Amino acid sequence: MSNKNYYDVTEWPIGNAQDDIGEVINSIIADVKRRQTDNDVNKGGKPGAVIYIPPGDYRLVTQVVIDISYLKIMGSGHGFTSSSIRFNTPENELSKFHELWPGGSRILVDIPLDADDEQHKGAAFYVKRDGDPRISSVEFANFCIDGLHFINDGSGISNPENTYTNGKTGIYVASASDSLRITGMGFVYLEHAITIYHADALSIHDNFIAECGNCIELRGWGQASKITDNLIGAGFKGHSIYAQNFGGLLISANNIFPRGANSVYFDGVTRSIVTNNRIHSFYAGMVVFSGNCSENLVSSNHFLRDYEPWTPFLEIDNGIDDSYGLLNICGDNNSVIANHFSVVTNDDKVKPVGTTPVVIRIVSGKQNFISNNHIVSTEDHAETSDACYSAQVNALLTTRTVKQVPVTTVLVDKESIRNTVLDSGNETQVEMDRNSNAFRPTPVPGS
Amino acid sequence: MSNKNYYDVTEWPIGNAQDDIGEVINSIIADVKRRQTDNDVNKGGKPGAVIYIPPGDYRLVTQVVIDISYLKIMGSGHGFTSSSIRFNTPENELSKFHELWPGGSRILVDIPLDADDEQHKGAAFYVKRDGDPRISSVEFANFCIDGLHFINDGSGISNPENTYTNGKTGIYVASASDSLRITGMGFVYLEHAITIYHADALSIHDNFIAECGNCIELRGWGQASKITDNLIGAGFKGHSIYAQNFGGLLISANNIFPRGANSVYFDGVTRSIVTNNRIHSFYAGMVVFSGNCSENLVSSNHFLRDYEPWTPFLEIDNGIDDSYGLLNICGDNNSVIANHFSVVTNDDKVKPVGTTPVVIRIVSGKQNFISNNHIVSTEDHAETSDACYSAQVNALLTTRTVKQVPVTTVLVDKESIRNTVLDSGNETQVEMDRNSNAFRPTPVPGS
Amino acid sequence: MSNKNYYDVTEWPIGNAQDDIGEVINSIIADVKRRQTDNDVNKGGKPGAVIYIPPGDYRLVTQVVIDISYLKIMGSGHGFTSSSIRFNTPENELSKFHELWPGGSRILVDIPLDADDEQHKGAAFYVKRDGDPRISSVEFANFCIDGLHFINDGSGISNPENTYTNGKTGIYVASASDSLRITGMGFVYLEHAITIYHADALSIHDNFIAECGNCIELRGWGQASKITDNLIGAGFKGHSIYAQNFGGLLISANNIFPRGANSVYFDGVTRSIVTNNRIHSFYAGMVVFSGNCSENLVSSNHFLRDYEPWTPFLEIDNGIDDSYGLLNICGDNNSVIANHFSVVTNDDKVKPVGTTPVVIRIVSGKQNFISNNHIVSTEDHAETSDACYSAQVNALLTTRTVKQVPVTTVLVDKESIRNTVLDSGNETQVEMDRNSNAFRPTPVPGS
Repeated sequence: MSNKNYYDVTEWPIGNAQDDIGEVINSIIADVKRRQTDNDVNKGGKPGAVIYIPPGDYRLVTQVVIDISYLKIMGSGHGFTSSSIRFNTPENELSKFHELWPGGSRILVDIPLDADDEQHKGAAFYVKRDGDPRISSVEFANFCIDGLHFINDGSGISNPENTYTNGKTGIYVASASDSLRITGMGFVYLEHAITIYHADALSIHDNFIAECGNCIELRGWGQASKITDNLIGAGFKGHSIYAQNFGGLLISANNIFPRGANSVYFDGVTRSIVTNNRIHSFYAGMVVFSGNCSENLVSSNHFLRDYEPWTPFLEIDNGIDDSYGLLNICGDNNSVIANHFSVVTNDDKVKPVGTTPVVIRIVSGKQNFISNNHIVSTEDHAETSDACYSAQVNALLTTRTVKQVPVTTVLVDKESIRNTVLDSGNETQVEMDRNSNAFRPTPVPGS
Repeated sequence: MSNKNYYDVTEWPIGNAQDDIGEVINSIIADVKRRQTDNDVNKGGKPGAVIYIPPGDYRLVTQVVIDISYLKIMGSGHGFTSSSIRFNTPENELSKFHELWPGGSRILVDIPLDADDEQHKGAAFYVKRDGDPRISSVEFANFCIDGLHFINDGSGISNPENTYTNGKTGIYVASASDSLRITGMGFVYLEHAITIYHADALSIHDNFIAECGNCIELRGWGQASKITDNLIGAGFKGHSIYAQNFGGLLISANNIFPRGANSVYFDGVTRSIVTNNRIHSFYAGMVVFSGNCSENLVSSNHFLRDYEPWTPFLEIDNGIDDSYGLLNICGDNNSVIANHFSVVTNDDKVKPVGTTPVVIRIVSGKQNFISNNHIVSTEDHAETSDACYSAQVNALLTTRTVKQVPVTTVLVDKESIRNTVLDSGNETQVEMDRNSNAFRPTPVPGS
Repeated sequence: MSNKNYYDVTEWPIGNAQDDIGEVINSIIADVKRRQTDNDVNKGGKPGAVIYIPPGDYRLVTQVVIDISYLKIMGSGHGFTSSSIRFNTPENELSKFHELWPGGSRILVDIPLDADDEQHKGAAFYVKRDGDPRISSVEFANFCIDGLHFINDGSGISNPENTYTNGKTGIYVASASDSLRITGMGFVYLEHAITIYHADALSIHDNFIAECGNCIELRGWGQASKITDNLIGAGFKGHSIYAQNFGGLLISANNIFPRGANSVYFDGVTRSIVTNNRIHSFYAGMVVFSGNCSENLVSSNHFLRDYEPWTPFLEIDNGIDDSYGLLNICGDNNSVIANHFSVVTNDDKVKPVGTTPVVIRIVSGKQNFISNNHIVSTEDHAETSDACYSAQVNALLTTRTVKQVPVTTVLVDKESIRNTVLDSGNETQVEMDRNSNAFRPTPVPGS
């Protein structure tokens, strides 16, 4: 037998991968479908294929449409670099840069778009198939999808490369799918890195997804999936992780860095688990449970909220007041256990002035269980800088401050009852109706 | 030099990978052994090899026997699809299916078997070597092992494809091993996916192991291993994860879905850790510590127990009563901290009728520490359906129920003493001898 | 187009990979630089390359110097075996060994070194580039770096192969970097496996790093990185994981086995997270926070401290007394929540004789939060053995002991104030000034 199911985009005779890898991959998929026609021959028949993208720059003008199961697209390099730093570096310094663009096995998303195109039109990879069974085991591994530039979005941001807007999406899955895998990939300068509708048993693991308007969006509904061990950081207008009507989602061991408007946003998500993540944000509203999110577990996470130290984004924020909470919950029967929260702030920066910042806020719902969370609040002394990296490191390492800043560690709104708050703040730090909820204050020295 | 240690099964001159990949791989292993004979030449000598399986359907009639270290077998596609859905779909709908079989780099296990054959006879990959050192660094990556069909097991199940029985095993390791890796694989329709005796420093990471009678079985004894970041779901007769006489096992970040008789079953396991998993089951006995399991940590897990919503399996269960506990412990000095339990049930479904369901049960042993667990119990209103996927999603998202159902959050049997139960249920929810054990009830509103 | 960015070391015309893979890889890197000269051509220009190392033994005499971004070096086999067992096996048994050396895609580090050479001289892979941007997306995947032998270090250890000293390093990153990845690798018999200065968004994931003097050292400063899902175990003189002046480090889901002097050592590390690891050591000082480590979270970890059972190392230890603590903290505002500690000891072995062993010790700093930790202490009955593996398994499984040994579960030194200790030891087990700190003892039966 010969191995016909392994394709190299640089060796395929139709199209030219350097000029339009989309045309090449679509032609390969057509070839797979032409060859694999019988769905039941000797207990097999449609095993799919692998398409290999060696390191190189590949322009994508034509959208790739995937409508077969068991297709793996793989490269040899996730190729991330910070385009954000590059696009905020003065010309004279830039002329000395070793390289300007991301690399590895790199897709340059260059699809012609109109301003009013639907989101999926701007997707480099569009996965959609009607009928049964759901499309299964499509895999993306170890290549880079680069949206190239952001554009003026009319918001008045002076440098259009800082808008996180360009209408481009890396991977868009439109129809219900099973057992998809996205692993070892790099995503950069896309308005949406990954948008997936109706996912089942999805795995998004060990990727680098940063400097995108939104990183991971699970839409429609879905179940039994995992988002694990990724390095993630969305833009200030979008979500690092967003999930809608999802049950049984595992979000764990991710390092979620700024500057997403929200680090994790759940809308109607149930029986899911956000554990063991390191989450850093410049804004309130880091983790939000909206639309009656119930029976979820948030535990063993490290939350850090401080302020943007990098000059180009100093004026930006997500518009959320400090009374909103770093963790904001609407819903029943959730558990928030054994988390650490670090809040760095000061009187001048609190929004609106005079607000006592809130850390955990239960807006509505009942029987939530908030226990054994340690909330640390210190005064902000970090300095801003033109240099992105050193500014962040300096800010992170500035912990020994003169004084603590008062915060409300837990605020339970009036509409929310029968909640339990244990060892997550002392008598003065927790605001709630102590009759309709249960409370045990964290002991204080000398008490 | 030339590269002789890279093999492609489709290019090997002996045998035909499509007809019997077992014969081909055994012939390749024989070639490696023929070429690598000296174990100490220039500080090396037996580096092993990699065998590549491109996407395709490969029948395996002859068992692969691995008795050399440093052999990597890899494909380009884990190829999972739900055979369970396919085999429970009516013929008329099936005729419209895009594909019927799993795919990717797919092994079709078709070894001729007798009913009374020992388990290892039915293994696609059999790893065994006597003498020293233990066989090391065998790696399996990114291919699919498919057992094809289940068969009538005499149990009276009307559709034999639902029995989870066929005598087939994916990977069977019979002798002591070191540093084995199983990564990115797919396993489907095997009675046993992975059975490993005497493991040391084993890694089972980021696989898709579902619709198998048993998924992962670590037998004999073993140490210092990890089962992480997998999507796992066994059949109703078997274990999703089983470990025996193991020390230092790390089970973390797995999404373990139904319908395993047990999600995690430990027999004589010590100093191990089950953290940060999302575990969903249709039965009691989700996590079981039997045979004096001691000094283990169970923390930051999300447990959900509800009911089978899919028509073909409605009559099935694992035979365990609701008094058994979702987590059942025999042993000393274990820790159960910061977990969330969701119990969905109702009076009609409790077994036997009139039982108050138990969530955490300590049957025997002493000095266990049960602290800061949040137990949620709601009434079951989910509907059953002929459609597997939508039935499950609907059930998962049904959380806003009229009333709570009483449960015993912690039951400590008389034989078990000196345990500590803190903040894991209120006065009425915890059953134990309050003299021989320590107890602090979760505060309730208004108290 | 043709694919020029994929290189196979066995096919490159310059040098001979078997004799000196360093010369070959340097020549390939030079070729990439020769071909990729323009940093802005059609929105790309320097995509880098992948260098493939098939399974085989490759001597490295010349250090590889990496000064380009987007270079991936990958093999097909992490190739670990225990050299430590091999070098402590008598000649007559050794003659029957199937293989002696590690394997897979294996680099034999054989750089000529002088005793007083700086560390980086002995590095197999040396990553360094001046100027901007920081070197990005260098990837190392699935090969083995073997230091071959340890040497006499003058310490009087009778078998020089047990010194963990040879001046060799696997990967040394000297200049600031972004988005590096080290995945699926094996490291063995190196004095330093991985040393990285000034890391940003680094991922060290799913590797096997053992029998090295030190495993992972993050030096200088750094931020927003992850060390996840590794099997790790350093030598008795070094660190399994070391980090310096780091912010936002995620250390999770690692199985860290003996015999590192410290399993995790933080020096001036802030806002980082050590969760969900299984940590086993033969010494006190398992996890150390020195130099004002602040606002870190340690949760859901399993700590086991017992004694060396293997004959060749019986006389060795790390020189730390039992009053030091398994977890030793200098710093403010850290959280230690929901961990399990198993201490196996007995009166004869405690150091110095008569000391009550300490489990968690806060040496200096304020406002640390120690809550809901379960500390188990049992008497040591494990037996020593000439056989490394069976000795360890037997020791691990020996849990049912006659009696408990008294320990101080938490010791807060006088200099440290305003700490909170909850449910982490009863009245007699916690030593601290109860006026300057807050305390709630774990309830005891009958109280």
